[in-house]
Amino acid sequence: MAVVGDKRELDFMWLRNLKHFKGRIFSVQIDPAEIRGIEALGVKNYLSLKEIPGPVDYVLVAVPRAVAPFIVKDCIEKKVGGAALFTSGFSETGTEEGKRLQDILENLAKQGGLNLIGPNCLGIFNPSLGLRHNADQDYVSGGNVAFVSQSGTQASLFTVMAAANGIGISKSVSYGNAIVLDSPDFLEYLARDDRTAIIGMYIEGVRDGRKLFKTLKVTTPEKPVVIWKGGRTEAGMRAIATHTASITRSPLVWQAAIKQAGAIPADNLESLVDIIKMVQQWKPLKGDRLGVIAISGGQSVAVTDAFNSLGFNIPLLTRRSYDEIASFFNIIGGNYVNPIDISWTLNSVDVLTRLLEILEADENIDAVILELPVFFLSKKEKENSSFINGLLSSLTDFKGRTSKPLIIISTSGARDAEAAEVRQRLLDKGLGSFHDFDRAASALKKVRDYYIFHDRVK
Amino acid sequence: MAVVGDKRELDFMWLRNLKHFKGRIFSVQIDPAEIRGIEALGVKNYLSLKEIPGPVDYVLVAVPRAVAPFIVKDCIEKKVGGAALFTSGFSETGTEEGKRLQDILENLAKQGGLNLIGPNCLGIFNPSLGLRHNADQDYVSGGNVAFVSQSGTQASLFTVMAAANGIGISKSVSYGNAIVLDSPDFLEYLARDDRTAIIGMYIEGVRDGRKLFKTLKVTTPEKPVVIWKGGRTEAGMRAIATHTASITRSPLVWQAAIKQAGAIPADNLESLVDIIKMVQQWKPLKGDRLGVIAISGGQSVAVTDAFNSLGFNIPLLTRRSYDEIASFFNIIGGNYVNPIDISWTLNSVDVLTRLLEILEADENIDAVILELPVFFLSKKEKENSSFINGLLSSLTDFKGRTSKPLIIISTSGARDAEAAEVRQRLLDKGLGSFHDFDRAASALKKVRDYYIFHDRVK
Repeated sequence: MAVVGDKRELDFMWLRNLKHFKGRIFSVQIDPAEIRGIEALGVKNYLSLKEIPGPVDYVLVAVPRAVAPFIVKDCIEKKVGGAALFTSGFSETGTEEGKRLQDILENLAKQGGLNLIGPNCLGIFNPSLGLRHNADQDYVSGGNVAFVSQSGTQASLFTVMAAANGIGISKSVSYGNAIVLDSPDFLEYLARDDRTAIIGMYIEGVRDGRKLFKTLKVTTPEKPVVIWKGGRTEAGMRAIATHTASITRSPLVWQAAIKQAGAIPADNLESLVDIIKMVQQWKPLKGDRLGVIAISGGQSVAVTDAFNSLGFNIPLLTRRSYDEIASFFNIIGGNYVNPIDISWTLNSVDVLTRLLEILEADENIDAVILELPVFFLSKKEKENSSFINGLLSSLTDFKGRTSKPLIIISTSGARDAEAAEVRQRLLDKGLGSFHDFDRAASALKKVRDYYIFHDRVK
Repeated sequence: MAVVGDKRELDFMWLRNLKHFKGRIFSVQIDPAEIRGIEALGVKNYLSLKEIPGPVDYVLVAVPRAVAPFIVKDCIEKKVGGAALFTSGFSETGTEEGKRLQDILENLAKQGGLNLIGPNCLGIFNPSLGLRHNADQDYVSGGNVAFVSQSGTQASLFTVMAAANGIGISKSVSYGNAIVLDSPDFLEYLARDDRTAIIGMYIEGVRDGRKLFKTLKVTTPEKPVVIWKGGRTEAGMRAIATHTASITRSPLVWQAAIKQAGAIPADNLESLVDIIKMVQQWKPLKGDRLGVIAISGGQSVAVTDAFNSLGFNIPLLTRRSYDEIASFFNIIGGNYVNPIDISWTLNSVDVLTRLLEILEADENIDAVILELPVFFLSKKEKENSSFINGLLSSLTDFKGRTSKPLIIISTSGARDAEAAEVRQRLLDKGLGSFHDFDRAASALKKVRDYYIFHDRVK
C-alpha cells in the first residue's frame, strides 16, 4: 500500500494510523522537509508512485486538489488495485474550479479503469489487515458487520462505536463524492463477501438509484442491510450539497425504496448501532408478546410504555407460570403480573434465573426484556461480587440455551462513566445491552419488521 | 424529624441517607436488636413517636404494613407536620387485605387532618435541609427546579440525573399511592414556593383530574411545568395498577389535558431532563430559524436533519454575513453555507468566536446550534489545553452576552466515560450541553411550543 502526500500539517496521520498494517507501506512525497518526517517514522519514501518496486494494491491520496489528477494518472499507469482520495475541494465546494477538477478526475479514472474511492473520503478500514483511517479503530479483531459510509465522520464514529458495543467490523469504507465507485458497488461486493453477514450503510445520495435498489433487493433476503439515509429533510438535503454534493431525491422516495427493498431504516447513528446489535443477537421471534422484568415499579411502567407504544404486547402469563412464581416470589415491593418488578432489593440470583426460565417456558411470551440498571449492578458489585458474578453467569447460560430473544437494557441513570464500564463487563460475558427503553424498543420493532417482511416475500 | 422502623435489613438506609440532615433526627423502633444498631449510628431512639420531646415536623414511616395504621394514629396524636409512608403492600398488591389496610390509612389520616404522603413512596427530598431519600442525592447545593414524582425510582433517578446535568433541585417529592396528598396539592404548594421556578412531574394517575387541570392552568403561565405521564399506553396503564394502583385515564385524554393546560409533555426521563435544561437556558426565541455549526460534513447533515424534521429552518445567512465569513474562513474541508462545517481540524478559537458573533448579528437567525463533540474536545485537551481553555472562555462570554439561545450539543461517539468528564467541564463553565441532536431538537421544539402557547394566551 502507498500513501501519497502525508505531511506534518496532518501530523502524518495516514502513516501513523497504519502503524499496525500487516502488509508493506510506502510513502510518496516530493517535499524534502516532509520526507525527513516520513523517514523518521521508518517508512520508505519514493518521489513517485511509479518508482515503488512491485505491485501496489491500494493507494491513499492526500495531496492538494490541483495535484490529484497527476496522482490518479500515476495510479492508472502503475495499474494499482485501487485508490482512495482523501483530497477534497471538488464539487462539494460549489465552485466551477472544484467541479472542473472533479470532472477531470472522473474522466481519467473511468477511462483508465481505476477503482477510485472518493474523492473527499477516508477510504477503506479493514481491521484484520490493520488498515485504518482513524487511530481509535481496532486493528486486531474483526467481525461480520460491514459498513458503507458516504461520510468519513460517520465511518469513524460508527466503527469506533461498534467496537464499544461488541460489534466487530469485517470491512468498512468511507466513499465521499463517489465519482467512480458508489454505494451499489460496495454493496454488491459485500453481498458476496464471506466475512460479512450484516451490512450497515450511511448514504447521502446515489447516482444510479435503480442499481442501488436492485442490489438491495437481492441482498436483503440473505443479509440484513441497515440504512441510515442522511438528508431525510429538505434542509438536510441542502447540507449534503456542500458535503458530498450527492444527487439527492425526495426523502419520501428514499423511505419507500428502503422499505420495498427489504432493508431496515435507521434514524441516526445510535439507531444504526442498536439495530445491528439487535440483528446480531437475534433469535426467531414468533410474535410480539413480551415478558418484561424491571428493577422497580416506576421503571416497569416506563419499559412497558416504550414497547407497547410500538405495538408490542405485554400480556398476562399462563396460569401455570403464575402458580409457579407464587411458590417462591416473596420480594417485598415487587410484583409479578407482567411487567415483573423484581425490585432494587433483589439479592438472590436464583429468583431471577427462575423467572427467566418461567418466561421462556410460558407459551404466552415470545421474547424476554430485562432491565439491568447500571446503578443496581455497580451497587451489587461493591456489596457482593459473588452475586454479580453469579448473575452474569446465569444470564450467559440462559442466553446460550434459550430459544427466545433475551434483550438486556442497561439503563444508566446519570452514571455515564460507570455505565461504560458495566456495559463492557456485560459484553465480556457475551451479553450485549441497550442504553435505554425507547432505543431498545425501536430496534426490536425494526428488526422484527425486517423478519416479517422477508418471511412474507420468501 | 423522626424515622419510624428503620432496620438492619434495609442497612438503616433512612438514617444513613439523613446523615447530612440539618435539623434533629430521632428514631422510633421497638425491637431491641435494631435499637442497638440505631444507637451505634449515634441516633437517639424512642419506643414511640409520642415520647419524642417537642414538636416533630416530618415523620418517615418504614414499618410493616400491618403496623402502619398505629403509627399514623400516633402521628395524628403527636400533631406532626406531616408523614411519608415508605411502607408498601396496599392497593398496589391487588389483594383485599392490601385495599382494606389502605382504606384504614386513608380514613385515619383524613379524619385526623394528617398531611400524609404515600404510602408506597420515598417522601421528600430537600437538598438545602440535607433531607434525602437516596445516598446519591445532593445535600449542599439547591436550585430552582422542583420535582413531583409518583414513582420513587423516578424521583431518585431524576434528582441524581438533574445534578449531573447542572439542574439544581429546590424540593422533590415521591408520593406513591397518593391516598391523601396528591399531585395537585404538591403543585399548588410549588406554584407559591419562591425557591421554585420550574416544575417537573412524573404522574401515573390522579384522583381529582379536574383539580390537577385547574392548578396546572393557573401555574403554567408563571412557571413552566414539564409532565412525564407514565402509562402512555394500555399496557403501561396496567403496569400502573400493580405499581401505585392509580386511577388512570386514557392516554389521549392526558395528552390533550397537558396541552390545554399549557404544560410541556415529556416522553421519558431523558426527555424530562433535556426539557428542563432547555427551559433553564432559555432566551426568547423569536422564530424557528437556526444557525448551525457542526464539526464535520457528515455531522452537519445529521444535525440539520434532526432540527428540520421538527419544523425548524436552517436558512441561508444574509449577504453581509457571507461577505464577512469569506474574509477569514479558510478551513480546508469546511464550508459555511449553513450548516457551517468548521471541521475537526479547527485550531483557532477566533474563527469560532467570529462565526458565533456573525450568527448572532444575522437577522435571518433566531438561535445558534453548536456541535462540540466529546471526541474533539478530549483530543484538543491532550494536544493543546490553551485551545480548550480559550474555547470554553469564549463560549461562556458569548453565552453571557448573546440575546439568542446558544445550544451546545456534546455528542459522545462511543466515549461514554470521557463524555461524562467533558460535559462536567462544560458545566463548570456554565455551559450546559445536550447528548445528541435528536434529543436537543426535541427539547427545543417542546420549549418553543410552550412559549408560543403562552404568548398567545396572555
